[in-house]
Amino acid sequence: MSGYTHVEGLSSEGVQRLRSVYEPLAGSVRALIDATIRSEVDADEVAAVRAQIDDATARLRAEQIDGPFGVRITSDGDRMPWGNPAIGIRNPMAPPLVIIKDGDGAVRTDFHLGAAYEGPPGHVHGGMVAMVLDHVLGEVAASDPDSPRFTGTLTIRYLRATPLGDLHAEGRITRTDGIKAFAAGHVSDADGITAEAEGVFILPKWARG
Amino acid sequence: MSGYTHVEGLSSEGVQRLRSVYEPLAGSVRALIDATIRSEVDADEVAAVRAQIDDATARLRAEQIDGPFGVRITSDGDRMPWGNPAIGIRNPMAPPLVIIKDGDGAVRTDFHLGAAYEGPPGHVHGGMVAMVLDHVLGEVAASDPDSPRFTGTLTIRYLRATPLGDLHAEGRITRTDGIKAFAAGHVSDADGITAEAEGVFILPKWARG
Repeated sequence: MSGYTHVEGLSSEGVQRLRSVYEPLAGSVRALIDATIRSEVDADEVAAVRAQIDDATARLRAEQIDGPFGVRITSDGDRMPWGNPAIGIRNPMAPPLVIIKDGDGAVRTDFHLGAAYEGPPGHVHGGMVAMVLDHVLGEVAASDPDSPRFTGTLTIRYLRATPLGDLHAEGRITRTDGIKAFAAGHVSDADGITAEAEGVFILPKWARG
Repeated sequence: MSGYTHVEGLSSEGVQRLRSVYEPLAGSVRALIDATIRSEVDADEVAAVRAQIDDATARLRAEQIDGPFGVRITSDGDRMPWGNPAIGIRNPMAPPLVIIKDGDGAVRTDFHLGAAYEGPPGHVHGGMVAMVLDHVLGEVAASDPDSPRFTGTLTIRYLRATPLGDLHAEGRITRTDGIKAFAAGHVSDADGITAEAEGVFILPKWARG
């Protein structure tokens, strides 16, 4: 069992309409996350704002799916990994990464990480760097939609601290061997590479032909 | 330069007071993130809720610090890594992990990951597993507050997919060698270990005596 949710009767236009409703909501919550970390307003104002947020949450929960969003695939073949914390357009935690696939199977993404991703002062949490690299390498390893591969091993070398701000990541397959794909990639800032990664990705049993 | 912010004139009581104001706010935003991913209310209701959220954000931004939160250290020695995406009590993205230090230098944490952390359907994004392991191993490697160590290399072996829900992670130092500390740890669910990690952590140049 893959656990993917197959959605019937949803056209590509329908997917775009849903996207136009929920993507801006996630964007607004993303800004709220940043403000929550950085605000210095006083206790009374925080309490008032909190009541407002709790009300917003209750209104959204008036109708909601049971459990997590999952990965939905429409009958037209649209994939909707919208809850994903790396790329999910409905997940306010996601930067979200916009993955560009190059012709040769490599992928790249330009993204911005602000206050919500901070570990060492002014710099990206090492775990968030790992998160980006895991996702980017996973995207190249799983470029065939019929052969999703999951991370087997991931090794990250941190060359220097990654500053918050505008960043780039890219990955490519270096080798495939049966159920395994080997991928490599890096994160960089304007001054060059900050962290490198190598990963081994494995085709899950349920997807082996 | 460590980049740590030294806060003068803030007592431990003052830190607790600030915590009592801002921690519940982050908790409310954390619930909102979950609702944002799972909501099925219609476009008009989403638009109304979004206006409410934008208003909350503007109110919080009426007074806010410039840039990210940083890591604040009070004159009493309280550390406030409150913006941290793994443990930060002011960061709605953080589960947040509550790190328990055992007497022998090992650390452990019990935590819950819901819809916002989903990669494969029903399971934790591999990058989020990496995030937790990076943080837990970093905590053991940096247990001496005068000798903060940063991740040099992190290797993660994913034994099986980690289900969303109640999880556990732990780490310990396996060896130290001058500026390097070697740490190992794992993430587990009720059925056992799902992912293992080994890390090499390095004392930064500015903290070498």
